[in-house]
Amino acid sequence: MGKLPSELAYVPFVSVENMMKNLNSYGVEEFMVGIAKYIEEDFLRWESFDKKPRIPAHAPQGVIELMPTDDGETFGFKYVNGHPDNTKEGRQTVTGFGVLSELSTGYPVLFTEMTILTALRTAANSALAAKYLAPKGSKTMAIIGNGAQSDFQCLAFKSMVGITEIRAYDIDPEASIRLARNLANSGLNITICKTPEDAIEGAQIITTVTADKKYATILTDNMVGSGVHINAIGGDCPGKTELHKDILLRSDIFVEYPEQTFIEGEIQQLSEDHPVTELWQVYAGKAAGRTSDEQITLFDSVGFAIEDFSALRFVRDLLPKTGYFEKLDLLADPDDPRDLFGMVLRSRDAGNGAVA
Amino acid sequence: MGKLPSELAYVPFVSVENMMKNLNSYGVEEFMVGIAKYIEEDFLRWESFDKKPRIPAHAPQGVIELMPTDDGETFGFKYVNGHPDNTKEGRQTVTGFGVLSELSTGYPVLFTEMTILTALRTAANSALAAKYLAPKGSKTMAIIGNGAQSDFQCLAFKSMVGITEIRAYDIDPEASIRLARNLANSGLNITICKTPEDAIEGAQIITTVTADKKYATILTDNMVGSGVHINAIGGDCPGKTELHKDILLRSDIFVEYPEQTFIEGEIQQLSEDHPVTELWQVYAGKAAGRTSDEQITLFDSVGFAIEDFSALRFVRDLLPKTGYFEKLDLLADPDDPRDLFGMVLRSRDAGNGAVA
Repeated sequence: MGKLPSELAYVPFVSVENMMKNLNSYGVEEFMVGIAKYIEEDFLRWESFDKKPRIPAHAPQGVIELMPTDDGETFGFKYVNGHPDNTKEGRQTVTGFGVLSELSTGYPVLFTEMTILTALRTAANSALAAKYLAPKGSKTMAIIGNGAQSDFQCLAFKSMVGITEIRAYDIDPEASIRLARNLANSGLNITICKTPEDAIEGAQIITTVTADKKYATILTDNMVGSGVHINAIGGDCPGKTELHKDILLRSDIFVEYPEQTFIEGEIQQLSEDHPVTELWQVYAGKAAGRTSDEQITLFDSVGFAIEDFSALRFVRDLLPKTGYFEKLDLLADPDDPRDLFGMVLRSRDAGNGAVA
Repeated sequence: MGKLPSELAYVPFVSVENMMKNLNSYGVEEFMVGIAKYIEEDFLRWESFDKKPRIPAHAPQGVIELMPTDDGETFGFKYVNGHPDNTKEGRQTVTGFGVLSELSTGYPVLFTEMTILTALRTAANSALAAKYLAPKGSKTMAIIGNGAQSDFQCLAFKSMVGITEIRAYDIDPEASIRLARNLANSGLNITICKTPEDAIEGAQIITTVTADKKYATILTDNMVGSGVHINAIGGDCPGKTELHKDILLRSDIFVEYPEQTFIEGEIQQLSEDHPVTELWQVYAGKAAGRTSDEQITLFDSVGFAIEDFSALRFVRDLLPKTGYFEKLDLLADPDDPRDLFGMVLRSRDAGNGAVA
């Protein structure tokens, strides 16, 4: 064994196990409130970000995407996949990891799992938008699609919007039972519903978060009454939507980044000159959010790189408080930066990797 | 502590320490010969790759780039930075890491350091091109720029091209002394030269691998005689070149991927209709390599994503033989893939991350 690498060689790494420890020690709801605060901060300085399109690699079974962005000081990217059939083999539909780096040196300062973190940031982002768009005093949320993302959505809307009643529907009743069991001690009242129509009865907020990769119609026009806020999560790639087009035509539509949402979101069903409002402008007071009790507001969520950047920033800042991370020997750090091969030689001479 | 994550949660990880163990157990030269074989294989199926441009994030101090590609079955990307002033603070100018994934599931199958691996693949790639382009029976190589990449270049040209004599020049004589010391037992004869003119005396191959981020003229036209092969490594981003334009006009120029090389390589000094030959076509017998003894051949190397993909494939296939890797708990793997939050709850109930 040679001498240990110096501090410059190490990158803080948050494994799945450590992400859960960070989450449980800080509190799941507090964690999402924290991410939402960072997202709001970053959306308020929207114009300082280099907004790049996602870089996709497609396969018949799904897609792998790289989502980079930077604010001129810090660079972040997420690796994320979407493979709807993965669950048949016991794998996750969506997994991910992410990296945050200093632009001035190019050195990573955080490497983390993002399967759990993406669910948290998606829910935090939804609840943040609803704070600006949902009817004041909303207490009841319908949630259609009760898969891996749904628990996080319910808890974020509880802590950030004040939701107390959840009306849950899934084509698989077991999914709803699972959701109700997980939220049993959360302070939320959960009603398992037999139909989508039943679920949206009396709800001020309707969250759709289904997973099929196809054009689906989870909500039809006659199901949606005036005055509700729709939080549409599941329509998030070309060919995958959840809402009937007529609902879109009756709604005031709010999006993260129009260039991306017209490709990936519900509004891929509309022409690109259809009016939409950018959320950052609502947060900044440059555009109106909800303006009347009758208005249907729709957040057409597709997930944007800046939200991942915010979540990565939040985790980076949290780690010194919790200590739940490892140090990964990721960066070669020779004594003399010009002598990479000398480091290899010294490792050999120290007996590492001797021929078996 | 709850139950351990299943095998699906883990991604094989090669740290810097383990990369050195892999390298020293397999042999540095054999490792580069192996990578070159994989690069040649991949270049021979050039048209099966999705060739994307690099995705850069620029700062005044340097650049961070993501370099993705896929062959329809496997996806790979490299994260790499280039920050010339990093060495002043004891950091590497270029560091990197990479990931290889199954396109059918989106799951990563390898995560590895790529600072050392990039130096290896760059040298392997240079020597592979020289096998096709350098004068037959080349014995002497001049190497101008004796930094972190130079040792690897010398060893790759020894094992793949048959070079026995190295003539080394650097503006910093200490760099040449370092190179000579590292290669003392390599079987190569090293001559340290006082000027670039001295270095190229009698050399059949001239390798330029300097690091300044600017238009430089490491070689002027009158220095380069007929019949040589120039292996130009250092000109690899906009605004950074090493060769006088007149040399380019006298040479037959070979490139990895013209779309990229006209932006990043020496040929950024030429108009985009200047004739160049794609290396993969030479390997495939579709285009001529060296055709005469008088010809100056120039490999204008910028580094292409497929070469990293080949290096990642090589490492993936090597690991089962050496065992020098760790398993990283990177992917959330709940018992029920639809129950991500349940996994968090069970971790909490098992006492992980209790509030301090």
